[in-house]
Amino acid sequence: MRNIDEHTITEAVLQSLAGTTSARLKQVMTSLVTHLHDFARDVRLTEDEWQAAIDFLTATGQKCTATRQEFILLSDTLGISMLTIALNHAKPAGATEATVFGPFHTGDAPHVEHGADIAAGAPGLPMFVSAIVQGPDGEAIANAEVDVWQADADGLYDVQRPELGDARRARAVLRTDARGAVRFRSIVPTAYPIPVDGPVGRMLAATGRHPWRPAHLHFMIRADGYQPLTTHIFRDGDAHLDSDVVFGVRSSLVGNYVEHAPGTAPDGSVVATPFFTLDQTFVLPRAPG
Amino acid sequence: MRNIDEHTITEAVLQSLAGTTSARLKQVMTSLVTHLHDFARDVRLTEDEWQAAIDFLTATGQKCTATRQEFILLSDTLGISMLTIALNHAKPAGATEATVFGPFHTGDAPHVEHGADIAAGAPGLPMFVSAIVQGPDGEAIANAEVDVWQADADGLYDVQRPELGDARRARAVLRTDARGAVRFRSIVPTAYPIPVDGPVGRMLAATGRHPWRPAHLHFMIRADGYQPLTTHIFRDGDAHLDSDVVFGVRSSLVGNYVEHAPGTAPDGSVVATPFFTLDQTFVLPRAPG
Repeated sequence: MRNIDEHTITEAVLQSLAGTTSARLKQVMTSLVTHLHDFARDVRLTEDEWQAAIDFLTATGQKCTATRQEFILLSDTLGISMLTIALNHAKPAGATEATVFGPFHTGDAPHVEHGADIAAGAPGLPMFVSAIVQGPDGEAIANAEVDVWQADADGLYDVQRPELGDARRARAVLRTDARGAVRFRSIVPTAYPIPVDGPVGRMLAATGRHPWRPAHLHFMIRADGYQPLTTHIFRDGDAHLDSDVVFGVRSSLVGNYVEHAPGTAPDGSVVATPFFTLDQTFVLPRAPG
Repeated sequence: MRNIDEHTITEAVLQSLAGTTSARLKQVMTSLVTHLHDFARDVRLTEDEWQAAIDFLTATGQKCTATRQEFILLSDTLGISMLTIALNHAKPAGATEATVFGPFHTGDAPHVEHGADIAAGAPGLPMFVSAIVQGPDGEAIANAEVDVWQADADGLYDVQRPELGDARRARAVLRTDARGAVRFRSIVPTAYPIPVDGPVGRMLAATGRHPWRPAHLHFMIRADGYQPLTTHIFRDGDAHLDSDVVFGVRSSLVGNYVEHAPGTAPDGSVVATPFFTLDQTFVLPRAPG
């Protein structure tokens, strides 16, 4: 191919992929190249803009460390992460929907008994959570693993507080009882901004976007014989429910967080501050096969 | 926007860009998001593939240093660089076409007189170049700056040889005379592979592509009153002319490199090895205005 111009070059690149052994890789690369070229032609990308894009991508890669993944943040804020989740987690009617996993899960959360205060000192107003895990016919799913994690009243996860070292708080793993239930005490989650001190922060500023995620509690639920679920329960009334910077909100995932005056909590304890309750049911489809 | 699914998410992301102050940035981001989402939907991107893409982009950014730009290499090998050049350098009939700039230009090449041996010790068979720079009506362009650079017989540019330090060879800057001519001695260029020890090398291997660029001599020409030109003159007969890994070849840029038996060169010197001559005319459009 020697007669490269703005129209012939796409076919030339696609022909260069003819020797790709993996049929799937060939399909993915063919679509990617076609769409990237169409983008450049559609906007008639200038050389200065191209250089700015190269610089942006380079800075994004160089911002990544063991504890900071700026390319995931870019994918999240451009809706690619949530789109990929939507493509791969189509749910039958009635099943609880999935949303983004996020970067703040850890594999070493404490395993606790029902009724435990998983906040473990994290600041925030008390919250009493009662959750039911059930199958598509309303059957209780016993012995399901319920992994929960969240930000505190300052909008920070434990891993974002260097002063905590490896100590874990406002996260835990529980098991459902015979009724498919778990209950625990924690704190009410608050909205928080994603990190904006990198290239993604510059992109948000340039496009007039705020960096906020509406308040939410993360759940990851696994049970034998059922499809696993990774999701959030968003706090109703949050000002950012319609403008989540990572596009993770689904109406069905907005929970009923009820605020109560100081007094006796569902577990019988007396609470001197306002507190919240959250009652939530999760429905898992059966695993295929 | 709370009803995010694989179809509604694109509109949600586009709506989030409503506050973009720059109309051009808004146009570019709108097109980029639309095409990236269409790509993910078209191939029904899986979560493992998404993770592999995040890892690839991160590694590409982290491979970049002051002397290595892996994202430019990625852009080059996916045809984005040459497409951008084609979009921005449409030439009138008769004008010499542009091609990729490449990563090996330096700002500190020696300024030399006509007839100089710019190889300065770089290995390769001698080559005697005579070039004419003219305008659209065939008028000579005097005092044009002609910046030339190239790889040597080992396929390496001087900057790729750490043993040379800051010494420069096989590159120079000349000025055209009253006839619009420059002439110099150098070495004949050879084909060479782009660097394959990074993510781009893995992409080429996975897609069954070779890393070779056909042999070429770089020219960057600037003259008052004319449009600047950045291009290559490719060596005719090169085995990779139809499969340049960066898609830079245009038929009109394949030069007439003539091989000669040992004997008297055009400059009157006697050469004991085979040698080459290259006679090339460059035509620059007039600058607008």
